[in-house]
Amino acid sequence: MKVQVITIGDEILIGQIVDTNSAWMGAQLNDAGFDIENITTVGDEEQAIKEALDRAFSQSDIVLMTGGLGPTKDDITKKTLADYFGVGMVFSESTFNRIQRMFEKWGRSTTEAHRIQCYMPANATLLFNQMGTAPGMWFEHNGKVAVSMPGVPYEMKYLMTEEVIPKLATQFTPRPVIHRTIQTIGEGETRIATRIESVTDNLPDSIKVAFLPGLGKVRVRLTTTGDNQKELQQLLDEKVKEIAALIPEFVFGYGDDKLEEVVGKLLMEKGKFLTIAESCTGGYVSHRITAVPGSSAYFTGSIVPYSNAIKVNQLKVKPDTLKEYGAVSEATVVEMVKGLLDLMQSDIAIAISGIAGPGGGSEEKPVGTIWLAIGDKDRVITRKLNLGKKRLQNIEYTGNQALNMVRQFLLEG
Amino acid sequence: MKVQVITIGDEILIGQIVDTNSAWMGAQLNDAGFDIENITTVGDEEQAIKEALDRAFSQSDIVLMTGGLGPTKDDITKKTLADYFGVGMVFSESTFNRIQRMFEKWGRSTTEAHRIQCYMPANATLLFNQMGTAPGMWFEHNGKVAVSMPGVPYEMKYLMTEEVIPKLATQFTPRPVIHRTIQTIGEGETRIATRIESVTDNLPDSIKVAFLPGLGKVRVRLTTTGDNQKELQQLLDEKVKEIAALIPEFVFGYGDDKLEEVVGKLLMEKGKFLTIAESCTGGYVSHRITAVPGSSAYFTGSIVPYSNAIKVNQLKVKPDTLKEYGAVSEATVVEMVKGLLDLMQSDIAIAISGIAGPGGGSEEKPVGTIWLAIGDKDRVITRKLNLGKKRLQNIEYTGNQALNMVRQFLLEG
Repeated sequence: MKVQVITIGDEILIGQIVDTNSAWMGAQLNDAGFDIENITTVGDEEQAIKEALDRAFSQSDIVLMTGGLGPTKDDITKKTLADYFGVGMVFSESTFNRIQRMFEKWGRSTTEAHRIQCYMPANATLLFNQMGTAPGMWFEHNGKVAVSMPGVPYEMKYLMTEEVIPKLATQFTPRPVIHRTIQTIGEGETRIATRIESVTDNLPDSIKVAFLPGLGKVRVRLTTTGDNQKELQQLLDEKVKEIAALIPEFVFGYGDDKLEEVVGKLLMEKGKFLTIAESCTGGYVSHRITAVPGSSAYFTGSIVPYSNAIKVNQLKVKPDTLKEYGAVSEATVVEMVKGLLDLMQSDIAIAISGIAGPGGGSEEKPVGTIWLAIGDKDRVITRKLNLGKKRLQNIEYTGNQALNMVRQFLLEG
Repeated sequence: MKVQVITIGDEILIGQIVDTNSAWMGAQLNDAGFDIENITTVGDEEQAIKEALDRAFSQSDIVLMTGGLGPTKDDITKKTLADYFGVGMVFSESTFNRIQRMFEKWGRSTTEAHRIQCYMPANATLLFNQMGTAPGMWFEHNGKVAVSMPGVPYEMKYLMTEEVIPKLATQFTPRPVIHRTIQTIGEGETRIATRIESVTDNLPDSIKVAFLPGLGKVRVRLTTTGDNQKELQQLLDEKVKEIAALIPEFVFGYGDDKLEEVVGKLLMEKGKFLTIAESCTGGYVSHRITAVPGSSAYFTGSIVPYSNAIKVNQLKVKPDTLKEYGAVSEATVVEMVKGLLDLMQSDIAIAISGIAGPGGGSEEKPVGTIWLAIGDKDRVITRKLNLGKKRLQNIEYTGNQALNMVRQFLLEG
């Protein structure tokens, strides 16, 4: 079953917000056996919305729309939809009552704007939105379905999960699509492709391969479709094994595995506690680690020793080391690891110090020079990165490498 | 001048990556006086790409494409383009030489895959891509222009900035579009809209207003267009002043100002150093602060006291306080602020402790209970948040509130 997605909002076209909704919808629909065929983004313009609807209905039976349902005056989606379907607007008493109750609970009163928000196209079946004031709207039109949802991500997600996908699954027959993804870190797209081509060159035509590069990471995805689900899943699982066996040192996970989750699981398995001293990454690695629920079971905490005073006072880096080698040096990160193990009473410590940029470089240590060290009471391993000049890219790349060093340290230990 | 954008990639349709490219392109084009009229995302399918091109050319003179130029076998854009324009593929010696030189520099050799990557549609003008191996391609077709760029964000950004926008500006006449954005934090979309409607209800028809909600934040955007740039800019600037005067307590910035940049500037102006102890936000606030270049001028560093042992040993929170009130309590965050000011030798400290979720709540302290405290040697201010159950949303919302507390503390101090 093919789905057309229309996202509405001037703010997307001028780049004031990134459309993360359609990616999330794509993943969820795919899991449920629906394929997005096309995503079209148009502005808050009546004509553009109607043209997008015409085109979408001409290609598919299912059209999902997000955006343009808020209470403020720039949102014209509802009126445009009523006009498109040739119906009037009616006041939804139940929606208004709900909004009033929500506001009472917060100890506040509703405004005239909230009342205006409750006028809906007469042919819409309203979908209950627990996360906000605007309900979703389900339209049936010449045997086809259109759904309009708010653009606020958590409201759209609630509606998709609780209402839209279940209703679609009863009304249409999802086509089985199967994906398998191998997650790698440490090598580039072309090299990975070359290393595994003995398998990928000999795949049946029904299996598609895609390479999805990230910062220091590459995902390899196999896709197939067909009715004999079980056989196909087995076939893909076999091929995934064959591919992974060709690049074992780079594979850190499968599917949607996140590097920080993989590292967390390894720490749990080994019963080890991790701590971090991150200077140039400034809290980014800690944030990645603690974004995983339950991370307090293997993460004691971290320190961001941005000033040299903290490196000396808290992490016991010797002032002579800083003087002789500088804060961005192998000697300094090694001393940081040792100080950190004591300070945070942890089993494994990782230390990062570098010049994230765009300023602050020298001829000897240009922007993008980054030192990492990982260690426990018995051994310390260091690594130097020579990156580019882009601050956020350097921080993210270094974060990936730091997490991978923890992974490798645990696997070797 | 209207621009049509086509982003190509199965990985976008199935939600494995978020299309951040088109938002960035929208913002850059808008600044340069071009408007994106439509963004269409299609899969790596010949037919879908050709249909999208037909539709785009029928509506506009400028079509920008991203994606599908990588070296691996899933990328069919180049062949499809050659076929669409009715030309063959030719080997680009200069591109291959460049790739060889790049790989030599890295001490590596090229593979056959790199050679295949150097075949280009015969009618393409190649655009130099300093950031990667695949050049951009500029096509002229019946007096219209199409450009194909790699989907890797930093490669696309380089090509847009250095090649595409300058070339478009010489070949077309950009239409002047003017935006002004007011950034607010601390109040919802509907309330902000109601508070400022005395101005927004009386704007000339030529000025559009949009409200762009975020987590605890709302951006208010005014847009207009016309030839008398100077007058229009003055008019918008006046309206922005009038609106800001109606909601001064919520306005933290304008345009693309980021809260962490605004806070950084205030710290610089006041000559104060900030430090953070963030437990449930786990490094996120530090990461936001240190993502700003030059933040070492006002940020000494931070600590993520994830375990209670670190709260006691490093931040000198009294074991009795933890026992009596718990780690998530006003008493604990106040003691954390005091301990932190000493530990990090800073002027202002902010402490955060809460239950980010999804697990770990109790009846008395449900998931989403978060305490914040900010203080210097003279005063301490605390705040309690009652948020939802979503971990990442709670972390981000709390981060926004923490940064806003620093802003308010500095403005009051």
